[in-house]
Amino acid sequence: MTAEFEIIARYFSRPAAHTLLGGGDDCALLAPDDGHILALSTDTLVSGTHFFADTPATNLGWKTLAVSVSDLAAMAAQPRWASLSLTLPAVDEAWLAAFADGFYQCAAAFDIALVGGDTTRGPLAASVTLLGQLRAESALRRTGARAGDEIWISGTPGFAGSALAALQAGGKPAQQPLLDALHRPQPRLALGRLLARHAHAMIDVSDGLLADLGHILRASQVAAQIRLAALPLAPLVALGVAPEAALQAVLSGGDDYELLWTAPASAHDNILALGQTLALPLHCIGRIDAAAATGAVCLYDHDGRQRTPADFAGFRHFG
Amino acid sequence: MTAEFEIIARYFSRPAAHTLLGGGDDCALLAPDDGHILALSTDTLVSGTHFFADTPATNLGWKTLAVSVSDLAAMAAQPRWASLSLTLPAVDEAWLAAFADGFYQCAAAFDIALVGGDTTRGPLAASVTLLGQLRAESALRRTGARAGDEIWISGTPGFAGSALAALQAGGKPAQQPLLDALHRPQPRLALGRLLARHAHAMIDVSDGLLADLGHILRASQVAAQIRLAALPLAPLVALGVAPEAALQAVLSGGDDYELLWTAPASAHDNILALGQTLALPLHCIGRIDAAAATGAVCLYDHDGRQRTPADFAGFRHFG
Repeated sequence: MTAEFEIIARYFSRPAAHTLLGGGDDCALLAPDDGHILALSTDTLVSGTHFFADTPATNLGWKTLAVSVSDLAAMAAQPRWASLSLTLPAVDEAWLAAFADGFYQCAAAFDIALVGGDTTRGPLAASVTLLGQLRAESALRRTGARAGDEIWISGTPGFAGSALAALQAGGKPAQQPLLDALHRPQPRLALGRLLARHAHAMIDVSDGLLADLGHILRASQVAAQIRLAALPLAPLVALGVAPEAALQAVLSGGDDYELLWTAPASAHDNILALGQTLALPLHCIGRIDAAAATGAVCLYDHDGRQRTPADFAGFRHFG
Repeated sequence: MTAEFEIIARYFSRPAAHTLLGGGDDCALLAPDDGHILALSTDTLVSGTHFFADTPATNLGWKTLAVSVSDLAAMAAQPRWASLSLTLPAVDEAWLAAFADGFYQCAAAFDIALVGGDTTRGPLAASVTLLGQLRAESALRRTGARAGDEIWISGTPGFAGSALAALQAGGKPAQQPLLDALHRPQPRLALGRLLARHAHAMIDVSDGLLADLGHILRASQVAAQIRLAALPLAPLVALGVAPEAALQAVLSGGDDYELLWTAPASAHDNILALGQTLALPLHCIGRIDAAAATGAVCLYDHDGRQRTPADFAGFRHFG
């Protein structure tokens, strides 16, 4: 049985780059590069709210860090240092070893040093503060969208939401690519960094495409048109998701951690080339309008007919 | 009734210095000074473990940040930016407003910008990640203690522990200076910064003087002698604490957040002068020995007789 105060020392003390001093003192000491500014993000995952209590610990360890990496990706920042606060109902060594493995897999994948943290006893929850670097002129804020920009989304939106819907329905299990998207989200860090040269505004999709697009629109005081025919529904349908459920998942499913950005039409071909370089499909799904009604989203059907979000049932996050 | 996702925006969005971008985007953007490195500390306070459930919210807000400031003080770092994760059983607006007031009182006292955070539902807990700056050559680590160094402690060790003992005993309430030390600890930040020029090793006392001295001794591979007659028991006795209880509180009481450091004897007069400048009593309580037995502490009585920690009952933290 490991005492609680030994947990960080025992499971979370692997060596760390960009770091003068990791654990074992009052503070970590970090060594940023000259000329860079810092980006900081905090996310907490709570059992029963953000994940199922029986989520495998390795997946949870990965996801705990990955959701913060996604925040930094959406700012075009390079993650460097993480701090982890774990609240645990009991000390379960096998669970902790698996959680640490998943956490460090994500840390290794994105070159992140774990440099601090603590553990306390209580209902299972994990909180990460992630710190990264970027040049001030590279930061992709939510405020930069301009009328005429194209709206893009990366990868496979709706996969995680479809897996969650299947798990909640309790019928036959979702197919593996959907479950992987839910349990082992892949933050689009390389894409975010490369988009710093092309995009005007960016966000990561954690609450759903329409909800997170809304954050950009309100911050930039603009509106948007989305072409439903341009949404990547086919990969979901190919995995057995019904077309109406696929549309719902793409527009309002959470937990995707895809990037959503706006960029001038002149960057269109360069962005498509980025997608080829990264072997990641990138989808141009609409356009930013001048703000007749700031924050408004118009959806256009296959035949060009305008739809309103109210035409679709159950857009939980859409406001 | 405030929705949970609005809590940070409503209660924790006051303006922030040294900050390019505080809230409202994927990350905060921080602007450190040139030539400085960064110090990072994470602390979590959980109801029932680290504070009484009925602790006034203003005090809890203060203390939540103050304990992390103390960590940076012990590294001789200047705190700059904090991130706050709050876990709340319910949204209680009066409680939140009071907690925010206490938190920002501490932030203002130490020139700290709150730049990130989140809130989740669950048993009451507050977690702070605090980031600060220092020059690499100024960092006061635990590893620097050398044979012949004097051992010092600041202020009023034992005050918080005596208040806690009184509250747990449930008899007559402790006197106000003791309760203030427990509920509104004063991190010794100015002292820590000034000691960068004089001290060899430093730690803040959160687990008790002997326990935290032990951390320095083991990290520095040295031993220590403590003169019991030099311990500041008189202020406790003057507040009605029995002499034996005062000795116990000073040696092993937690939650003090005083600084404990070692420095060469040649710095003795300069350190006393610092105390006068800061109007803060500083106590030279012993000496670092070469490591006959690394980590060992010898206690010497008023008449020079050697005592062992086992002579004193109930040193909970002493190992």
